Amino acid sequence: MKLYDYFRSSAAYRVRIALNLKGVAPERAFVHLRKGDQRADEYLSLNPQGLVPSLVTDDGDVLTQSVAILEWLDETFHEPRILPRDAAGRARVRSLALAIACDIHPINNLRVLNYLTGTLGVTEAQKNGWYKYWIDVGFEALETRLARDGATGRFCHGDAPTVADICLVPQMANARRVDFDFGPYPTLTRIEAACQALPAFVAAAPSNQPDAE
Amino acid sequence: MKLYDYFRSSAAYRVRIALNLKGVAPERAFVHLRKGDQRADEYLSLNPQGLVPSLVTDDGDVLTQSVAILEWLDETFHEPRILPRDAAGRARVRSLALAIACDIHPINNLRVLNYLTGTLGVTEAQKNGWYKYWIDVGFEALETRLARDGATGRFCHGDAPTVADICLVPQMANARRVDFDFGPYPTLTRIEAACQALPAFVAAAPSNQPDAE
Repeated sequence: MKLYDYFRSSAAYRVRIALNLKGVAPERAFVHLRKGDQRADEYLSLNPQGLVPSLVTDDGDVLTQSVAILEWLDETFHEPRILPRDAAGRARVRSLALAIACDIHPINNLRVLNYLTGTLGVTEAQKNGWYKYWIDVGFEALETRLARDGATGRFCHGDAPTVADICLVPQMANARRVDFDFGPYPTLTRIEAACQALPAFVAAAPSNQPDAE
Repeated sequence: MKLYDYFRSSAAYRVRIALNLKGVAPERAFVHLRKGDQRADEYLSLNPQGLVPSLVTDDGDVLTQSVAILEWLDETFHEPRILPRDAAGRARVRSLALAIACDIHPINNLRVLNYLTGTLGVTEAQKNGWYKYWIDVGFEALETRLARDGATGRFCHGDAPTVADICLVPQMANARRVDFDFGPYPTLTRIEAACQALPAFVAAAPSNQPDAE
């Protein structure tokens, strides 16, 4: 197996956490997003979206889209499970994960920020305002859901990490890179701390990658 | 079961298609997004994200995030399957679906467009350029993947509709609402036509909903 990775990509960070939880260590290749490696023909032939991560399986299948990769990892390497066994629990975990993976992260992705400052000519201050705004909108809803729901435990769903935590921690890391106020988000902060007590999460952090700058 | 719906929401449109394919007809409630019904306390208490769709199950669980709802529907109402049975096929279908559900749709969602024209003061022409740009970027990659891959059949994956088609058709409908050039996308257009030959897709179209304007 081979993972196409970039230390600062939060989508790749998700997959790194899941691989660590499963105890799976693929070969690694690094795609430098800020240098534009993802737009090289060689990488585009692998992943026409030009995004990371991509995971090439031992069967030669090229898997893309981090949440699809997380699902595949859980279907392929069964223990520990990162999705609950019951359909209602799975729906809850997937919804929490997608509230980040669909509704926060893509809006703040590098290519969107480049369009804002390049094509639309917005200022750095406006760009930073945009970045924090979409995290706030997303985190407000997540905090409300997690704080009120009895299914929340030490982690987003019960007392073991799931795909929801795997999406939450990289998004929290993105927020930590800007001057973001975590005051309104005590439940998210508590769950992040529980995750960061686990070696699988620590080892996946951007600063602990071979390509970190 | 009760579906909170809005005729023009393409996330709700996905769920309507899946329900029709499964032959499941929940009670319906309509949340008028352009009038702001999604920000009323009553709806926010159900879905703190203030987005549609939401699906309340017969057990009283509130399911949110359309892709999570599609997964739940397939786990709960087994036939016809909208995800392949093999892990590699499931990964492929989920990746195609998420390339739309994560990387096109949220960037062009109503609330994002409102931020562009409101907070950032971009012109209508710039907003329309943004809208088409993100569809083009996403469709280019999808067209490349679908056109070259032997797993593509009459539909995105083989000869029966899956979650990938369920995400594709509403995104095509969004593109049809603007002056969008489908010329570069013959495979997407062919698959859309195959879907529109099925009553489940036709009945789910925005113009065929009780709340259509």
